[in-house]
Amino acid sequence: MSYRPLTPETLLDYLKTREALKDRLPPDETYRVREVGDGNLNLVFVVESEQNPEHTVVVKQALPYLRVVGESWPLTRERVVYETEALKLYNRYAPGLVPEVYDHDYEMSLLVMENLNRHEIMRKPLVRRVKFPKFADQISTFLARTLFYTSDLYLPGVEKKALQEKFMNPELRKLQEDFVYSHPLMDAPENNWNPLLDDLVEEVRKDGELKERVTWLKEGYMTHGQSLIHADLHTGSIMINQDETRVIDPEFAFVGPAGYDVAAVIQNLMLNYASHFAHTEDPAVRADYQDWLLKTMREVWTGFAEKFEALWVGEGERGELAPKGYWDYPGGEADFARFRKHYLQRIFQDVVGTAGTKALRRMMGIVSVWDISSIEDPEKRAVAERFAIRVGRRWVKEMDEIRDIDAMLDVIREETEAALA
Amino acid sequence: MSYRPLTPETLLDYLKTREALKDRLPPDETYRVREVGDGNLNLVFVVESEQNPEHTVVVKQALPYLRVVGESWPLTRERVVYETEALKLYNRYAPGLVPEVYDHDYEMSLLVMENLNRHEIMRKPLVRRVKFPKFADQISTFLARTLFYTSDLYLPGVEKKALQEKFMNPELRKLQEDFVYSHPLMDAPENNWNPLLDDLVEEVRKDGELKERVTWLKEGYMTHGQSLIHADLHTGSIMINQDETRVIDPEFAFVGPAGYDVAAVIQNLMLNYASHFAHTEDPAVRADYQDWLLKTMREVWTGFAEKFEALWVGEGERGELAPKGYWDYPGGEADFARFRKHYLQRIFQDVVGTAGTKALRRMMGIVSVWDISSIEDPEKRAVAERFAIRVGRRWVKEMDEIRDIDAMLDVIREETEAALA
Repeated sequence: MSYRPLTPETLLDYLKTREALKDRLPPDETYRVREVGDGNLNLVFVVESEQNPEHTVVVKQALPYLRVVGESWPLTRERVVYETEALKLYNRYAPGLVPEVYDHDYEMSLLVMENLNRHEIMRKPLVRRVKFPKFADQISTFLARTLFYTSDLYLPGVEKKALQEKFMNPELRKLQEDFVYSHPLMDAPENNWNPLLDDLVEEVRKDGELKERVTWLKEGYMTHGQSLIHADLHTGSIMINQDETRVIDPEFAFVGPAGYDVAAVIQNLMLNYASHFAHTEDPAVRADYQDWLLKTMREVWTGFAEKFEALWVGEGERGELAPKGYWDYPGGEADFARFRKHYLQRIFQDVVGTAGTKALRRMMGIVSVWDISSIEDPEKRAVAERFAIRVGRRWVKEMDEIRDIDAMLDVIREETEAALA
Repeated sequence: MSYRPLTPETLLDYLKTREALKDRLPPDETYRVREVGDGNLNLVFVVESEQNPEHTVVVKQALPYLRVVGESWPLTRERVVYETEALKLYNRYAPGLVPEVYDHDYEMSLLVMENLNRHEIMRKPLVRRVKFPKFADQISTFLARTLFYTSDLYLPGVEKKALQEKFMNPELRKLQEDFVYSHPLMDAPENNWNPLLDDLVEEVRKDGELKERVTWLKEGYMTHGQSLIHADLHTGSIMINQDETRVIDPEFAFVGPAGYDVAAVIQNLMLNYASHFAHTEDPAVRADYQDWLLKTMREVWTGFAEKFEALWVGEGERGELAPKGYWDYPGGEADFARFRKHYLQRIFQDVVGTAGTKALRRMMGIVSVWDISSIEDPEKRAVAERFAIRVGRRWVKEMDEIRDIDAMLDVIREETEAALA
């Protein structure tokens, strides 16, 4: 069927034509359809049987333009292919941590998947100060497994290049290259910031040392084909409940620097931390929740690092970076262990700088995060935003000196004291 | 026409069917054909008119296996596509420094190009101590132009990804990943070295610090998609005379680290330098030629760096790494200049380590260079080989400390004293 955007009215007739959905959506039942997309790029429909709550799917269809900007910003609908292929790969390497894929139709730029109706988008409960005790363990498993199994530590060389070619994703990469790295730090029409912070924003945009570091991080983003990354792993791309974590929306996926996804998770938790200077007035309640966020950030990194290294030791035999036999000599075992440590250390330095860059872009670029943009009073919002910019700037500028997760979190602690002083 | 390897007997009939060659090889003349391939991967035919010396071409046809190993090592014939497409691109960005392409037939894995019959392969005259006063200027122009125009400093993001996708080249990259970086430093059946150097070779293969550095360089080779690189730019891939330099054989081309090609040129000149400890007995004659080689290595780097930066300043406007407007603020000009300097500095550090790695692989891996393998006396050859290994090892291990080309060449000078002591 040639491409046409579906509507809640036309969707059901379309779905009836899909062989793969016959059992999941039996034709003798009746269905409710809601369009729930709050993203910028896609239509998202929820389909639910009125007879059987198990008979439900989510349908995602790509629009041929960037919704927030309108039809003036055309984008290829290819991105639904990237999302579907990434989800299939994630289902293989991190089963249970992403939605199941039921069907796809690339001519219609359309994907049918599991309805995560027992989960909610993570951002909202984080603002309500809900704690998720299993989150750090689950997301670090997702990060370790997806980043290891798509790297040169696991894949034979020729397979790695095939993966890279399959996920070339030039259009969406270009969006992130501009909107994450360059535009927030320069004069660009779509930039958006709190006028109360004009001085600070201006200062950051003239900070040559910071801008050079961000340029190097951009260089890594553009050229360092280390692992298949999700590339948009903010807390709006995570569905969660007390028991389960599910990563969604990998349409930006490509083979890039492994630290990027880890940085995205930590930086989004930091922005949520910042938002509670406004959302949560009681100092004790705020401190308690912010402490949980710090603990979670810490466990995201340590969990990732431990699991990634364990996978490498256990399943690195086919990989190319440290091929079988290369470290076979007296003392080689220890040399190999040191190399693994250094490899994870390099990812960590990337995490620090990238988390800083991404925090700045949220405060000074095209789009903030709901945690902070939902603070209505501009004065109160400025407290959160100033904090986030100060932490972000230090993470970027001190990225070589910050050598472990505790030092990274110390920046948050120090800037908390400054914010409250 | 479906693929079949041509022979000197069948070639002319084939060429008569090619429309693009009608004027270049008029059908009313008679032709001599010679097969001259000394490579491992291809048949190479020279076709010359017996009536008009201007009517001549070179035909290169890929074999479906690695010649030196025999039919047991199948390789895709795709590589003639990579070579042809790279030559076309080089003709655009570095005209006059590569052979012209006259015709290609991808079904036959075949390329027809300019016969460089006024040039010779550079290795041989370097052994005869011929000086080429224009070489450093010409090869540094080739390096600067091909590496700049295919980088993110010049290409818009989407075009860069298209280039990367076009030159994915997984099979030949895998060969270099193994044969340059890993196998020479471990137990591998194809390794080849002078038994007189057993102790030194053994020592290098157990040197954990060196092996970690080489692994990082391999990581860069596998993942750092900086510029389209030739990836096999030794002095056997350079045709030369007193006036002109021509780069041939870019079948390994892919988007990789920019320093790789620069390193290849410098390291091959260093190996030739080493060979004269055996080829040239008269100390004064040897010193004179080795001095010319040192001067040339120096000018290859400085010429490359100056021209690369000049291209960036002059034509970087469409590029993505330092987009127009990003450095527009008081003091931004100086910050941008500092970034350019650092960018070239990072390429330089890569050059040092890569040149060292490649020197080691020639002395301890699957294949040496003719400059050195042509030294018949194993004792004399060991002097050259020991020198090359010692320089290579230091270039790798000191790659962070060696901060400029003079320091890089000082290692050669110091090891020369040690070799003669």
